[in-house]
Amino acid sequence: MTVELPDPATADCRALSSILARVGDKWTVLIVVLLGDGPRRFNEIKRMVGSISQRMLTFTLRGLERDGLVTRTVFPTTPQRVDYKLTELGSALWTAVEPLSTWARAHLNEIMISREEFDKRNSSVRSHEGVLSER
Amino acid sequence: MTVELPDPATADCRALSSILARVGDKWTVLIVVLLGDGPRRFNEIKRMVGSISQRMLTFTLRGLERDGLVTRTVFPTTPQRVDYKLTELGSALWTAVEPLSTWARAHLNEIMISREEFDKRNSSVRSHEGVLSER
Repeated sequence: MTVELPDPATADCRALSSILARVGDKWTVLIVVLLGDGPRRFNEIKRMVGSISQRMLTFTLRGLERDGLVTRTVFPTTPQRVDYKLTELGSALWTAVEPLSTWARAHLNEIMISREEFDKRNSSVRSHEGVLSER
Repeated sequence: MTVELPDPATADCRALSSILARVGDKWTVLIVVLLGDGPRRFNEIKRMVGSISQRMLTFTLRGLERDGLVTRTVFPTTPQRVDYKLTELGSALWTAVEPLSTWARAHLNEIMISREEFDKRNSSVRSHEGVLSER
């Protein structure tokens, strides 16, 4: 199998990275998963996500809207109601993220154990090793 | 469909977030994709990734090793040779990341266009709007 890795110097690769960086941001994945179930109001999302600040939620939703993954609909009620909904592109992202989300949940413990063992093994062994000496 | 969103207050959700954050970091995905093709030496990876610094590559590979996604084998040659290889868990991650990587490449242009249009639309409209006024 040949892997076609884009040239990191090109605009394409920088753009791809910026998309993967967005998807990898922890709030984005949680919100896309949540909206996969149907449209939600701002305050519903905030309550369901739990520990997110209002400022960070606004920032994350605006980024998703900018990328064309989410639509924002304002209803002229008092108080104003704002709904967020996945676009077709957002739904496709949700489908693409699903295997990764499943993988992460399935192997959570394994990774936690690996981290603990690594830290135990390396707490003394590599402490004086110059990590930049690899060739 | 019911979405089971983990409670963000729990350790499980924090751990899941930290795994998704690692996977979302742009270098990690590129390196996992690259190693999907077979084991590579440190300098080979550095050359293939291109714009990564030696320090950042060392840091990223060490994180992958800590998570149990990559093994690091040192050959006692002069100069020292260091090989990196995906573990079984790392190969499973590569499989799980593939749909996301395909999605990102397929919709790159669409997202770039959406960003441009959003910025044009919003450069004046929302400039005086308090983004924290949503309810």
